[in-house]
Amino acid sequence: MSELSTCKTCPSADTMLSEFITDLGVDTSHHRVETQKSKCRFGLQGICCKLCANGPCKITPSSPKGVCGATADTIVARNFLRAVSAGSGCYIHIVENAARNLKLYAAKGKLKSVETLHKLADIFGIKGRDEKALANLVADKVLADLYKPSFEQMELVEKLATAPRFKKWQELKILPGGAKSEVFDGVVKTSTNLNSDPLNMLLHCLRLGISTGLYGLTLTNLLNDVILGAPVLRTAPVGLRVIDSGFINIMLTGHQHSMFSYLQDRLIEEEITNRAKAVGAKGFRLIGCTCVGQDLQLRGEHCSEVFSGHAGNNFTSEAVIATGAIDMIVSEFNCTLPGIEPIANEFMVSMICIDDVAKKSNADHNAYSFEEDNTELMEHIITKALKSYEERRPSVAIKELKNHGDEDVLTGVSEGSLREFLGGDWKPLIDLLASGKIKGIAGIVGCSNLTAKGHDVFTVELAKELIKRDILILSAGCSSGGLENVGLMSAKAASLAGDSLRAVCESLGIPPVLNFGPCLAIGRLELVASELAETLGIDIPQLPLVLSAPQWLEEQALADGSFGLALGLPLHLALPPFTTGSEVVTKVLTEDMISLTGGQLIIEDDVLKTADLLEGIIEDKRNALGL
Amino acid sequence: MSELSTCKTCPSADTMLSEFITDLGVDTSHHRVETQKSKCRFGLQGICCKLCANGPCKITPSSPKGVCGATADTIVARNFLRAVSAGSGCYIHIVENAARNLKLYAAKGKLKSVETLHKLADIFGIKGRDEKALANLVADKVLADLYKPSFEQMELVEKLATAPRFKKWQELKILPGGAKSEVFDGVVKTSTNLNSDPLNMLLHCLRLGISTGLYGLTLTNLLNDVILGAPVLRTAPVGLRVIDSGFINIMLTGHQHSMFSYLQDRLIEEEITNRAKAVGAKGFRLIGCTCVGQDLQLRGEHCSEVFSGHAGNNFTSEAVIATGAIDMIVSEFNCTLPGIEPIANEFMVSMICIDDVAKKSNADHNAYSFEEDNTELMEHIITKALKSYEERRPSVAIKELKNHGDEDVLTGVSEGSLREFLGGDWKPLIDLLASGKIKGIAGIVGCSNLTAKGHDVFTVELAKELIKRDILILSAGCSSGGLENVGLMSAKAASLAGDSLRAVCESLGIPPVLNFGPCLAIGRLELVASELAETLGIDIPQLPLVLSAPQWLEEQALADGSFGLALGLPLHLALPPFTTGSEVVTKVLTEDMISLTGGQLIIEDDVLKTADLLEGIIEDKRNALGL
Repeated sequence: MSELSTCKTCPSADTMLSEFITDLGVDTSHHRVETQKSKCRFGLQGICCKLCANGPCKITPSSPKGVCGATADTIVARNFLRAVSAGSGCYIHIVENAARNLKLYAAKGKLKSVETLHKLADIFGIKGRDEKALANLVADKVLADLYKPSFEQMELVEKLATAPRFKKWQELKILPGGAKSEVFDGVVKTSTNLNSDPLNMLLHCLRLGISTGLYGLTLTNLLNDVILGAPVLRTAPVGLRVIDSGFINIMLTGHQHSMFSYLQDRLIEEEITNRAKAVGAKGFRLIGCTCVGQDLQLRGEHCSEVFSGHAGNNFTSEAVIATGAIDMIVSEFNCTLPGIEPIANEFMVSMICIDDVAKKSNADHNAYSFEEDNTELMEHIITKALKSYEERRPSVAIKELKNHGDEDVLTGVSEGSLREFLGGDWKPLIDLLASGKIKGIAGIVGCSNLTAKGHDVFTVELAKELIKRDILILSAGCSSGGLENVGLMSAKAASLAGDSLRAVCESLGIPPVLNFGPCLAIGRLELVASELAETLGIDIPQLPLVLSAPQWLEEQALADGSFGLALGLPLHLALPPFTTGSEVVTKVLTEDMISLTGGQLIIEDDVLKTADLLEGIIEDKRNALGL
Repeated sequence: MSELSTCKTCPSADTMLSEFITDLGVDTSHHRVETQKSKCRFGLQGICCKLCANGPCKITPSSPKGVCGATADTIVARNFLRAVSAGSGCYIHIVENAARNLKLYAAKGKLKSVETLHKLADIFGIKGRDEKALANLVADKVLADLYKPSFEQMELVEKLATAPRFKKWQELKILPGGAKSEVFDGVVKTSTNLNSDPLNMLLHCLRLGISTGLYGLTLTNLLNDVILGAPVLRTAPVGLRVIDSGFINIMLTGHQHSMFSYLQDRLIEEEITNRAKAVGAKGFRLIGCTCVGQDLQLRGEHCSEVFSGHAGNNFTSEAVIATGAIDMIVSEFNCTLPGIEPIANEFMVSMICIDDVAKKSNADHNAYSFEEDNTELMEHIITKALKSYEERRPSVAIKELKNHGDEDVLTGVSEGSLREFLGGDWKPLIDLLASGKIKGIAGIVGCSNLTAKGHDVFTVELAKELIKRDILILSAGCSSGGLENVGLMSAKAASLAGDSLRAVCESLGIPPVLNFGPCLAIGRLELVASELAETLGIDIPQLPLVLSAPQWLEEQALADGSFGLALGLPLHLALPPFTTGSEVVTKVLTEDMISLTGGQLIIEDDVLKTADLLEGIIEDKRNALGL
């Protein structure tokens, strides 16, 4: 047992997980919160600059400018735009791969939701019935847009956005050019002695928010649906109890579900199961972790034979490995914490990265191919998993947590499955909103972090507080992992809601927190919002709808947040981004944004005050609509 | 006079400039070195991470990992790759605009060096004689490569690189895909919880180095030569004395010479001169500052009527404005210090940015068009300059420094003009090297900073020390600004060289430090090195050639440096990049690189020790060649 592993761990909303981690005897992120508790105040405020060899510079009362003359406003805006650019880049990488995968799968003739394909073709204005040809055309349209230069607007934005939003973005001159070039430009702008204008850089963030949201989020979901099947409502087990040590367990981390489609298909072949049985296992199982686990859960209807369930979010992954029951990790993106590397080593777990951008230091890189069947890669993974199982099982103790994860949860919620559940259109939801039985909707989205009161603590407390006030919650991202593992996505949780919402949930048999899945599914929330607004003939900011990414963690979350602001939505964060050192940036994000897009950044680290604020906004929006 | 402006300024190799700045009564970067002298040791070592809301984290003995588990090696490599990506992005932006400008100029039928165009067409394997068509095809080839995805190798790399280098890069799997996508991937890799493998990230830096070097540097020079004319050897005045307050003076800053071609042409039209005369001026003049000033100086033969000369480098720009004789600033890129903004305001100098990526907070953005004649933009600049002259001249005191900048300097040095000067091939230079009359060549390149002993201090001292040892210096970048303003690029400086080199310089009538111009011209040095190596039938690392970017400043310099390492050259820096906190990164850059590419990073902050080291390497290379 290391010295660190005896440190106290941070609090977690998931007390069972928390106790498990405390007793593990391995170092985890939960322990390192303590050792990293001394924070740099310049970093926190965003007023530290490391762009040149005259630095690092920091802004203080006696040194109000960097050597070059950059003010706090310039430094903060540069740091922020660079982070948003990187976050956007991550999502654009994902949608690019999804589109490439669609072409590969179309060639195989193995698309699982041709309905979604036809829907996309309709949206894009592509005619034809041949599904292989359609899939190629759809993918090509997406890829063509991503690769446009920044001075050419992407074509699909107008087709994907609501008309009032498109008009607003046009007025603000924030319609994005090619998504990859917009990221590129964001990075160039923030380099040494380039852009110094905070407003120019914040508008660039909005532009990145639009491309991130419509392409990186919304389209990724839909392209993945075509390949892997559209979500279907069902209940499923969650938490560490999904792990059955009788199987050869492959833990998945990342954000690119379609890169696991081959594996899903291959692992259920009889030949492969037999190879597992030959080494004493019951077969192979995929254990979901991080957002790609949410995606597998969401589309669980289409991979039920091999997918055990979603074990937990980013900061659960270390515990999942330390159960000892994981034999292999296959990852393709974040949130694959570096912290899992020594734990994987200690527990003799092989790690394979199939996307070079997320190469982990202790892992092999075996590239996924978008051009041809990944037969060799699949064989490599399977052989390695079998070998790992045989080598490690005799010597590694298993600590499964069979009672972790409360009740089975409702999953498979998407813009499509929810609409269908409601009878084919949004009228029932609109009626419930109009009557006040549901006061409003809060999207609780984004990551989990360990610093906003602890692991999932703010997220869970806020969700409980909002449902008490009859506000329906739609969630997406690692936040969903916490919410489901503590039971808020089980039908029983209706009892925690206010009387009106409770009655609605009980009559429909649904929980008061509906899980749309991975952070990518923020794009599905956007589709719900857009369809509600279009049905009502209003603009998105008029809806009684608020967003909170209470425990945002990553640069990607800042790009998501920029999308929320571009949509004109109020967006709460419990912890501020590293921007508080600039009055200008703070004012633009928290005040001026209202007159720009209708959106607003709200920073509040108290749960009750946050609930009051969000409820107040919902009430204001209701009043404005005459409800 | 502000409080800050009474602070002591940092030392400068250019004592006359230093005194001028001390007496100015305005705050400059030279003053702020003092107020920013307290440096964060975590930032300096690269062991601070701000990628997520659990942070900022810093590595200390008691907190050896970030909350996520990232080690010092991961954190340092991420920070470094992100900086190199941004630096590469800057240069790739420049070459993209140069290629777009070539198309615009080809349409106008106004290309100034069709010889370079035919040379490029030959290199690219494009047949034909019609120059407009050729120019379009050349530009299209470049643009097509830049926009390739990262999984498709750029076509021109093999055509631009020497055969042994190409083979080496192929072996190392560092041949770059599309340059913009490589930047994009570098940024994605370094985002929260993505790549954690230092070696993977350092190899990515080399890949970026290759695309930066061959495209951002080498090709930008050649494309600009086609548009603006190839360099021709001549002598020219430099320093603050080039400013004549009798004219309406427009100071230029940036890196994109071709974006000023319209202005060069327009300002010498009689009608425009008459408008200047009508307000009491003798006409218009362009004052060069930063690298674009070096580029105008380099191609001065083709803009002698309107270009006054190169006033100085990045950290001279504040003083140039504070002379009072500048009426307007037109900028298009870095190194446009934010520090010039309040000085421009105080001296009532209008600022216009013609490229959005470098929008300054106090400036108007008036976009340069790559699609059509910039008639309106030119009129806007001229009208505004006239207005500025009329409004400010009555009330602003002029402090010209008529005796600044020693002798006239030799300029117009390029791979082409130097070869021609030598009689059409490199044999005379090779003979001088072989005989030992010139012991070796040092490229002193890159920026100027204020922290390696002061403004240009290390650069100038090192240059003096090396020429004493009969090492010929080729320079490029802001370093050139310092070297020329203190007289090292004047023929008289031969007297400072060792006996052998002095004799060579005197017989040829050249200074011992040859100025290739802007940092972009590092690409010209690469052409010289490649041609020397090819003539000798050896690989570049075998040449008695070393690089030093003693006073590197910007992220761009780190991308340049990565090119140097990919070329297999020893590269000295007086200040380390922010990488010293990682043993792995330090070892790879300073030791293992030798066995990878042949290159090596050398960090040494003592001038004499640096000269010893570089001379020693040159001697070793001579010995290995049997010289």
